[in-house]
Amino acid sequence: MSDSVELVVSAAVATVTLSHPGRFNAMSRRMWRRLREVFDSIECMPELRCVLLRGDNGNFCAGGDISEYADFRFQESSLRDFHENEVWTALQSMLNCAVPLVAEITGNCMGAGIEMASCCDIRVAGTSARFGAPIARLGFPMAPREATLVTREVGLTVTRQMLLEAAIFTADDMKAASFLSRVVPDDQLHAEVLATVQRISALSPQAARLNKQTIRSLVALGGAESEGDATVSAPAADSYRYADSVEHREGIRAFLEKRAPIF
Amino acid sequence: MSDSVELVVSAAVATVTLSHPGRFNAMSRRMWRRLREVFDSIECMPELRCVLLRGDNGNFCAGGDISEYADFRFQESSLRDFHENEVWTALQSMLNCAVPLVAEITGNCMGAGIEMASCCDIRVAGTSARFGAPIARLGFPMAPREATLVTREVGLTVTRQMLLEAAIFTADDMKAASFLSRVVPDDQLHAEVLATVQRISALSPQAARLNKQTIRSLVALGGAESEGDATVSAPAADSYRYADSVEHREGIRAFLEKRAPIF
Amino acid sequence: MSDSVELVVSAAVATVTLSHPGRFNAMSRRMWRRLREVFDSIECMPELRCVLLRGDNGNFCAGGDISEYADFRFQESSLRDFHENEVWTALQSMLNCAVPLVAEITGNCMGAGIEMASCCDIRVAGTSARFGAPIARLGFPMAPREATLVTREVGLTVTRQMLLEAAIFTADDMKAASFLSRVVPDDQLHAEVLATVQRISALSPQAARLNKQTIRSLVALGGAESEGDATVSAPAADSYRYADSVEHREGIRAFLEKRAPIF
Repeated sequence: MSDSVELVVSAAVATVTLSHPGRFNAMSRRMWRRLREVFDSIECMPELRCVLLRGDNGNFCAGGDISEYADFRFQESSLRDFHENEVWTALQSMLNCAVPLVAEITGNCMGAGIEMASCCDIRVAGTSARFGAPIARLGFPMAPREATLVTREVGLTVTRQMLLEAAIFTADDMKAASFLSRVVPDDQLHAEVLATVQRISALSPQAARLNKQTIRSLVALGGAESEGDATVSAPAADSYRYADSVEHREGIRAFLEKRAPIF
Repeated sequence: MSDSVELVVSAAVATVTLSHPGRFNAMSRRMWRRLREVFDSIECMPELRCVLLRGDNGNFCAGGDISEYADFRFQESSLRDFHENEVWTALQSMLNCAVPLVAEITGNCMGAGIEMASCCDIRVAGTSARFGAPIARLGFPMAPREATLVTREVGLTVTRQMLLEAAIFTADDMKAASFLSRVVPDDQLHAEVLATVQRISALSPQAARLNKQTIRSLVALGGAESEGDATVSAPAADSYRYADSVEHREGIRAFLEKRAPIF
Repeated sequence: MSDSVELVVSAAVATVTLSHPGRFNAMSRRMWRRLREVFDSIECMPELRCVLLRGDNGNFCAGGDISEYADFRFQESSLRDFHENEVWTALQSMLNCAVPLVAEITGNCMGAGIEMASCCDIRVAGTSARFGAPIARLGFPMAPREATLVTREVGLTVTRQMLLEAAIFTADDMKAASFLSRVVPDDQLHAEVLATVQRISALSPQAARLNKQTIRSLVALGGAESEGDATVSAPAADSYRYADSVEHREGIRAFLEKRAPIF
């Protein structure tokens, strides 16, 4: 078993499953590239009516795969390449999805998890799911485009708490913040999500595609560049200058050494 | 008795009543045109302090008058004319209202109802009111300008549920989503709304007009064209190309035949 | 004892205390100018990790100091100077704060109070705190830039109620509206805020500064001019033309005479 993003298409529904055994489905670089391929291939399936995104083994996604971070995060160019060419292009491919995208959220939905969930249209979570982006503990900020996306879906107040306090939220908190569409008991979650997918699939696919197009164009308004679904302007030239900093190294080293960081 | 939009002015308060007996006040084309005339005439009443919008006979408005749809919806030019020149100009006339606009919401507030409510400043509903825009069942999307308006007031998450899932929401749901200002027991609603109108009318009309002007200019920001209160750019050239489609015809035919549509 | 904005720096935390004994910390012009100086000086403290804003004697801030209003509000040029050069520059200086800004909100948080709170990142309130901007009772509107700021943080629905109905909200209301991060019993508030400041100070200061920079650039998008943190365009030429109006004079006179205004 290894890290994967699996695509299964059955009738008019595509199911995308994040899987990284032993790591709560943390996104490796391979998974980000695979996620993009999966959503690019979904774009070429005109008969599709709905896409379901879920995680394996009781978690949605716990964040990035920190075990890979020392390999590329401490150099500005490779760090920029990671965020702009691997993470963002995958998220953009999700945002391009022409049909309703439903997230089934269980367990950890952190960092990369909250970013992928922010690309979904309908988010349903189990009662015990937990949400956050506590990367300030790792000594680094959320990349600008990713933060724009999350702020738009999560709202200013909760995003600030996630990023500035490293706060963790319950499913009920995220329902109150209008991020989640529904919260259901964990053991009823999958049935509820399947019913949602069925309900969406029985409605007019043409209406769904046109409505998604309109909503996408709305959230793209306000952005400096509004080509396609670019909801955000390009990051500033110095956005990744922190790569080689002491805090960045300390945050990631402390995590890998299972100790508290000292900033 | 027939379909009407009635205007009654008493002292500094104008009351606008939607009425379409037997159809839960569904908006006919005649009512859209009349709604615009009513709000255009309100613009010329400098002494006014508050406008109240309500529906007759226990409902706010259940949507559009579907019995008229076969006459004009299946041709692109007449469909565009309906949405851009009848519906949007009426909604724009409501958005232009210089004084506080209060919605008293009872029963059904669907489709056209949620759009008109989205033009109001203060929205008060009875406990049993229901909200949605389940037009995906009818095979067509919400027109771009109308969806922009609704998304701004209802929020992204709930708008997506209304449009992509055909979800229906209670008054408490819409209060939690910050769409409603207040929810009160049905039998206390009218008294509560009258008290609201009184309270607004006793405050400085100059402050009200200037505050509305500022808030209107805010929500107009972000739009591609910001003339007047145009909060949205003109729809794309192909926005109404779906007019003559199979799904559009099937959705409306199924509704008129009182059967489930097959998409 | 007189009106003051006090700055105390201890280790990496700056505490800013609003104080105006006998007036619930209402902001005098002197306090606005001092507030700007304080936040300008904070910008020059690179070692700072967190700023705490609080009010003296059980209140955050009850609004502007109305006893000064007759001196400058009835002339357009001095009114404009007050809002644009005293109030807005102070608020802008708060918005420029590079590190997380935490508000500890007790008692009254009205008018100027809600504006200053809207510049903060994390807002924690005691259960008995009250929120509003009932200036329509005083015969004048919220200045355009200030209303833009408040609308962004408070949301459209609640802002409209504050400005058009002169509505007052509880801490729980403002938590539901996603304005507050947390509401705690009054007697636990200060301990909770200190714990928040500690938690923020232990995280990576670099991450905090970069995350604040990103979020600030987001909310600046959409504005007509986006230099620095200007989230709003310059006010229209006629924004302060109401200075010498009958309603403005009556509203302020009635307040000073402790009677209800007649508009």
